[in-house]
Amino acid sequence: MNLFILGVTGNIGEQTLDIVRSSKGKYKVVSVSGNNNFEKMKNIIEEFKPLYVSMGKRDIIIRLEKLYPKIEFGFGREGLIKAATYSKLGNDLVVNAVVGSVGLEPTIEAIKKGRNIALANKETLVIGGEIINKLIKKHNVKLIPIDSEHSAIMQCLNGEDSSTIKNIIITASGGSFRDKTKEELKKVTVNDALNHPNWSMGAKVTIDSATMMNKGLEVIEAHYLFNVEYENIKTVMHRESIVHSLVEFHDTSVIAHLGNPDMRVPINYALSYPKRTEYKGEALDLIKVGSLHFEELSYKKYPLLKMAIDAGKSKGLNPTTLNAANEAAVNLFLNGKILFLQIEEIIRESLDVFKNDSEISLKKILDRDLKVKDYIYKKYS
Amino acid sequence: MNLFILGVTGNIGEQTLDIVRSSKGKYKVVSVSGNNNFEKMKNIIEEFKPLYVSMGKRDIIIRLEKLYPKIEFGFGREGLIKAATYSKLGNDLVVNAVVGSVGLEPTIEAIKKGRNIALANKETLVIGGEIINKLIKKHNVKLIPIDSEHSAIMQCLNGEDSSTIKNIIITASGGSFRDKTKEELKKVTVNDALNHPNWSMGAKVTIDSATMMNKGLEVIEAHYLFNVEYENIKTVMHRESIVHSLVEFHDTSVIAHLGNPDMRVPINYALSYPKRTEYKGEALDLIKVGSLHFEELSYKKYPLLKMAIDAGKSKGLNPTTLNAANEAAVNLFLNGKILFLQIEEIIRESLDVFKNDSEISLKKILDRDLKVKDYIYKKYS
Repeated sequence: MNLFILGVTGNIGEQTLDIVRSSKGKYKVVSVSGNNNFEKMKNIIEEFKPLYVSMGKRDIIIRLEKLYPKIEFGFGREGLIKAATYSKLGNDLVVNAVVGSVGLEPTIEAIKKGRNIALANKETLVIGGEIINKLIKKHNVKLIPIDSEHSAIMQCLNGEDSSTIKNIIITASGGSFRDKTKEELKKVTVNDALNHPNWSMGAKVTIDSATMMNKGLEVIEAHYLFNVEYENIKTVMHRESIVHSLVEFHDTSVIAHLGNPDMRVPINYALSYPKRTEYKGEALDLIKVGSLHFEELSYKKYPLLKMAIDAGKSKGLNPTTLNAANEAAVNLFLNGKILFLQIEEIIRESLDVFKNDSEISLKKILDRDLKVKDYIYKKYS
Repeated sequence: MNLFILGVTGNIGEQTLDIVRSSKGKYKVVSVSGNNNFEKMKNIIEEFKPLYVSMGKRDIIIRLEKLYPKIEFGFGREGLIKAATYSKLGNDLVVNAVVGSVGLEPTIEAIKKGRNIALANKETLVIGGEIINKLIKKHNVKLIPIDSEHSAIMQCLNGEDSSTIKNIIITASGGSFRDKTKEELKKVTVNDALNHPNWSMGAKVTIDSATMMNKGLEVIEAHYLFNVEYENIKTVMHRESIVHSLVEFHDTSVIAHLGNPDMRVPINYALSYPKRTEYKGEALDLIKVGSLHFEELSYKKYPLLKMAIDAGKSKGLNPTTLNAANEAAVNLFLNGKILFLQIEEIIRESLDVFKNDSEISLKKILDRDLKVKDYIYKKYS
């Protein structure tokens, strides 16, 4: 199978390469995209010998071109799209592990090319769900989630008739600050936030996990992936991150996916879907784990969870505004420009300032995305 | 769908009728068998109007015949087989909820008639697994388990390729005596044993649950149902009886079936298989449950678990000897003839006295069953 890996230098990208490494030639890395990590991309080129490489900016490409004259290079938005749509070889799969709204366009172009997508880029569905679902149908391609929660749900469903689903139950570890009070949250630092108890993830997702925005985005993602109404998508706090999500059927049966927290499991599943191929990870030892806990995930403690779900329900451009505001605010927090609790304030403000528009288009989404970020960066940088 | 319900007056039989009641005419009860409960059978006849009725002994049949001259009646072994094979109507399902080895023959005869089986009678597979699996293949019928554990496993597998299974993990509540020491077990009474913490079941199964023989029989049953080696069938103690069993796949993914303990869920699933039809039971509330616990199921504390698995592994007539000895011993315990811990001693003794024979046949199985029971009743009554 031919892989086109977007965001290859990030956390999910790297773990995708782990699966490629252990697959003994089953996967061929045809194209890759990164952002600004020259050394990492150099190593990836040496090891996987892709035919096409794109980076965020032109200067890094110029340095790489000198080293690898036989490889085709690109950069920026166009390079990313080209990495997703690079020459049709047959049995192709795009792994979209880009972080942020920038992941939407390459997904759209790859779908238009009839290419299946393994999706780690939540934003594709959060801001473009309505567009994407129409395109998937039209071009008859598969969209396979890489998020552990959505992969879990897909595995729990496993071909069951969607009319038999009563509820989807998404678990949340509670993030880095699950035991902190609102008062304590006022003074948390970037380093505190990046210290996630269970999962090793990228910085953006780790902050989203602490604010619970991540879970809100996942609810929107689940709505589009599984065609389930928001009323039937529940969330539950589960500290151990062993139960990755559950599906409740209309006969009261609940099917759950369990395992040690290891993103390579859903990546491996997405790559080999619809088959389930072997992965030599650490087996789950339930007796060693001993107990699994479930608690209410409070909207009061996590207002961004409710804000995200409400934005999802209202459709149109609201999810784009929410997501753009979150991307900008998290970026500002990671760069020490704002406090942790300001993330929430800035998103609320943005949803006030930028009104919803229910008639969406790709152009409108990209435009709104840019405008919201611009507004926030100008005001808070 | 036409139902042929064996053991209709027992616990599983009654709950099967609950499902029939709530199905609004989807199921028609064609034939039923009971043992000696005249009043219960009278009520069932009035409500469900079966065409054929069989009871354990002739005297009850004579009383029933006077009341219902239009119904066809039978009794004993032949009556039971006739209930399972009664006139072919098309879209037929035999529900075998008989307790004990007596359930084997009617299953065999129903399979030979090309009839699908919803199986609550563990003994069918424990003592006849080798024979049954050949017949199922030959007559191309479906064997759908009603046990909550096996129904759970079937739902977790849900069409997955059996080559992807690494382990089947069967949960056990621990039974009525899970927190008692060996010393305390010496003086437990029948009433103590019948007080199961989670499930409402028949007397025999409740005692088997306390000795953990039940779990041993389930391991053997799982071996034949899912074609999984004994080394890959694990057991784990799970006090809450919320996780009904799990399947571990070769990619470390573990799929579990959860729900409140309610046998009508697996019964409903077996009746509607391969579809999943609605059942208005109590929804699982994970937050209310709060936590799920998993502990080792110790062979030291439950020697009958190991004895059963060893008998299963050795195949031939050993499972029949084990099962017959257990049936007789549990019967003696329920009638106050022996102490609780003697059940284990008597089974061990029987496996010593009656040697294994790897060349099995239905005749040999029924013969061994009779001889073992005879030996025990003569010695211990």
